[in-house]
Amino acid sequence: AQSSVTLYGTADLYLSRDSSGGHTTTGLKDGGHTASRIGFRGTEDLGGGLEAHFLLEAGYNPETGAGTLPGPSLAFSRQAFVGLSGAWGQLDAGRMYTPMFYTLFKADPYGVNAVFSPLNLVSATDAQPGITAFAARASGMLRYRTPVASPFVADIAYAPGKAATSSRRSGEFKGAAFGWQRKPWYVGYAFQRVRSGSAAAPVAVPAVTTYHALSASYQFTDLALYAHGMRTTARLPGVPDAVLFALGASYPVTPVSTLIVEAIRRKVDGSARAQVAWTLGYDHHLSKRTALYARWLGLDNRSGASATLAGVPVVADSGDGVRVLAAGIRHTF
Amino acid sequence: AQSSVTLYGTADLYLSRDSSGGHTTTGLKDGGHTASRIGFRGTEDLGGGLEAHFLLEAGYNPETGAGTLPGPSLAFSRQAFVGLSGAWGQLDAGRMYTPMFYTLFKADPYGVNAVFSPLNLVSATDAQPGITAFAARASGMLRYRTPVASPFVADIAYAPGKAATSSRRSGEFKGAAFGWQRKPWYVGYAFQRVRSGSAAAPVAVPAVTTYHALSASYQFTDLALYAHGMRTTARLPGVPDAVLFALGASYPVTPVSTLIVEAIRRKVDGSARAQVAWTLGYDHHLSKRTALYARWLGLDNRSGASATLAGVPVVADSGDGVRVLAAGIRHTF
Amino acid sequence: AQSSVTLYGTADLYLSRDSSGGHTTTGLKDGGHTASRIGFRGTEDLGGGLEAHFLLEAGYNPETGAGTLPGPSLAFSRQAFVGLSGAWGQLDAGRMYTPMFYTLFKADPYGVNAVFSPLNLVSATDAQPGITAFAARASGMLRYRTPVASPFVADIAYAPGKAATSSRRSGEFKGAAFGWQRKPWYVGYAFQRVRSGSAAAPVAVPAVTTYHALSASYQFTDLALYAHGMRTTARLPGVPDAVLFALGASYPVTPVSTLIVEAIRRKVDGSARAQVAWTLGYDHHLSKRTALYARWLGLDNRSGASATLAGVPVVADSGDGVRVLAAGIRHTF
Repeated sequence: AQSSVTLYGTADLYLSRDSSGGHTTTGLKDGGHTASRIGFRGTEDLGGGLEAHFLLEAGYNPETGAGTLPGPSLAFSRQAFVGLSGAWGQLDAGRMYTPMFYTLFKADPYGVNAVFSPLNLVSATDAQPGITAFAARASGMLRYRTPVASPFVADIAYAPGKAATSSRRSGEFKGAAFGWQRKPWYVGYAFQRVRSGSAAAPVAVPAVTTYHALSASYQFTDLALYAHGMRTTARLPGVPDAVLFALGASYPVTPVSTLIVEAIRRKVDGSARAQVAWTLGYDHHLSKRTALYARWLGLDNRSGASATLAGVPVVADSGDGVRVLAAGIRHTF
Repeated sequence: AQSSVTLYGTADLYLSRDSSGGHTTTGLKDGGHTASRIGFRGTEDLGGGLEAHFLLEAGYNPETGAGTLPGPSLAFSRQAFVGLSGAWGQLDAGRMYTPMFYTLFKADPYGVNAVFSPLNLVSATDAQPGITAFAARASGMLRYRTPVASPFVADIAYAPGKAATSSRRSGEFKGAAFGWQRKPWYVGYAFQRVRSGSAAAPVAVPAVTTYHALSASYQFTDLALYAHGMRTTARLPGVPDAVLFALGASYPVTPVSTLIVEAIRRKVDGSARAQVAWTLGYDHHLSKRTALYARWLGLDNRSGASATLAGVPVVADSGDGVRVLAAGIRHTF
Repeated sequence: AQSSVTLYGTADLYLSRDSSGGHTTTGLKDGGHTASRIGFRGTEDLGGGLEAHFLLEAGYNPETGAGTLPGPSLAFSRQAFVGLSGAWGQLDAGRMYTPMFYTLFKADPYGVNAVFSPLNLVSATDAQPGITAFAARASGMLRYRTPVASPFVADIAYAPGKAATSSRRSGEFKGAAFGWQRKPWYVGYAFQRVRSGSAAAPVAVPAVTTYHALSASYQFTDLALYAHGMRTTARLPGVPDAVLFALGASYPVTPVSTLIVEAIRRKVDGSARAQVAWTLGYDHHLSKRTALYARWLGLDNRSGASATLAGVPVVADSGDGVRVLAAGIRHTF
């Protein structure tokens, strides 16, 4: 079958005024609506309903042109995978978003992992020493997913630890999601379990961290509602769980603009340290591909906590909050 | 509107014989005519004369395949920006050439910043300790330009310093250009002012460096003439200004080949240290996209000066000159 | 002439079970069939049979999305060159495979430099201290090749050393291949000679290493046979030569699947240290572009030797062997 590579991407910059603990900075930043990226993807019809596909996606910061994740150079470190799909579903190998990421993403009006999603507090580790922060992607995964059109969703992924010495389970990843999506409803449950260490830096006794999420959304004619409950657990002595609850809504105030609001609370069991965060957003679409947007984010840290959002530095154990006011443009190609 | 990403670029290699102070090296080098690059760009018609656009451009060295600026890996560090344009002009955000770069570029037969342009002495810092070298690009800029078709050119850019502590103005950039372009004339004035330091390495008292340029060109039927006057100033005690004058000409000796000559003098106020440099060039076009070229560059350093051109190492305070003889191929795609 | 850039590439991942000296690891790895890559290439018709062309090729690992050669970021470090071709042949400049690489590649059913080719033992340095390992590519080459359609093949390349001080010949490369290709026969002889050091790290007395290869293949109706003899020599006191002999065969067991076998013996003159290696392979083509494959590789190290294949770590001077069992997918685009 014929090659048909699609080149795609996003260029997104915003002017940001960040403040925390009395320090304020102003400047351009990457990806307030959607992280900037450039990618190549393609599918090949193999006959009999079977398709081969691949996807390679690099992140970049249009403020400087430097690569991201981690940068400063380009790599396909956002996503890189190759696989087969058919009526039975989809089988992939490589670096991808995790099953739990999709569960959160589908019920987040901002899209979790985007700069201004309050749901990103799922990656906070405040008052949970030794826990492995939630990551939206994993490398070296083997993954099965139910077909895209299926109302029942199953999404199962495994990445073996690759260390030869010390514990071979260093860096091991397990994740799965199960859900139901039929308009107006979406409901999903997901977990992911990771062991600390990696092939490059194996550890003798990898610590196990587990995340659970229950997510739902409901689409009225105009209004959409979103809700999440999450728990993050480290199997380490004396490290408490954290519990997060989030609620969100989006509403098309005009045919080309949308108002979005989302709030979250994170609480560490048996500790006064907690966070409340919210984002108020407005998207104005110049076209399907190009939008202007505004975001106003607030994060409060209780009892000396020092989690952060939107990459704003917060002094450790200061209890300082974060405020960000942003206006930007997102152009997809 | 439909996506229409254009992939474009240049592959340019030359065989070079460089010498300075008795050392001679021979080998392949990147970009004697036009720096090698690969880029992606696109525009979207938003209706009503409004357009969205983006551009991502990476530099590479075809001798090794390594990235440039700075390399060895690829990044869109040549240019990366996103913006809107209309009858009112063009508004961009990101990493771009500066307004002053375009003023110099439009009146340089070699194209300033290309390896063999003698105008690159504008970036010399010899006998000006502490001055920030002229850079053709800046990151994190917000920029307004008059429409491309306008005979009157205004081009105004600003990049705020982004440091949270020390002086927030570390790395701040301001630049503007004003000109008139209607054949056969082009006349432009530009300045750019930068403060030392950066968000990553802020300084308490950022030193201010300012560059000024007055540039002009005149196109006869065949012959084109070019002239520049430049001044570079550091607001630092005891650091003198440098003044540069350049003259150039290009002439199509056959329908497919062009002879180019340009010379420049750089003088530091109140110092005997000075440079005179010249390049003699010949372009032979095999097609619009592919050219063979030759360059002969000379640089003399007076009174122990040690500025350089074409990246040839010059021993500090040696007064050694530079000679480069080059023949290459430039292919655009 | 019109631009016509082709975007092409390969995504190849395999699940591997590696063992050596009692250590076993399991996980996804890059390029068991064909190294993963993404590239851009184009040609321009200049008229009169003359063509300009360029090629830029980056390697990446689809397990992580990171760049390869060396990574972790992307660069066109697989190949980057620009050149002209006509009835007289092809002239190129830049980074390319060496003439000797092509001689080996054309007579290797796995394609030398691919992970599971036993021929990669040509790069082994076991019991040859100070020898420069064989490299399949060189930077900064000027190269002439006979036309693609010519049954007689001549392929000559030179890369000057580029150091200004110490010995200017540091890193110098010379290579050539001569052969005859007319079905069912291919016969080729090649050598490459490198001097140690580089422009970045010049040495006073660069050591000379030379590789020779004589390669042949014969294509019956179905069965193809392959044979190689190689010698690697360092002009260093007390460093013996190594001699390698390889035999291979491929056979299409069905119209869409191929069985491949290849074995090699490497022997260091006057030393008991030696290697025997083999790979048994099976390719099943889902289409011209997509294949599933299996590989079983074995390497035995004699008398405390510790060469390796497929990137499996072998303890120095252990005499440990290597076993790899792999199953993967290769998708080209």
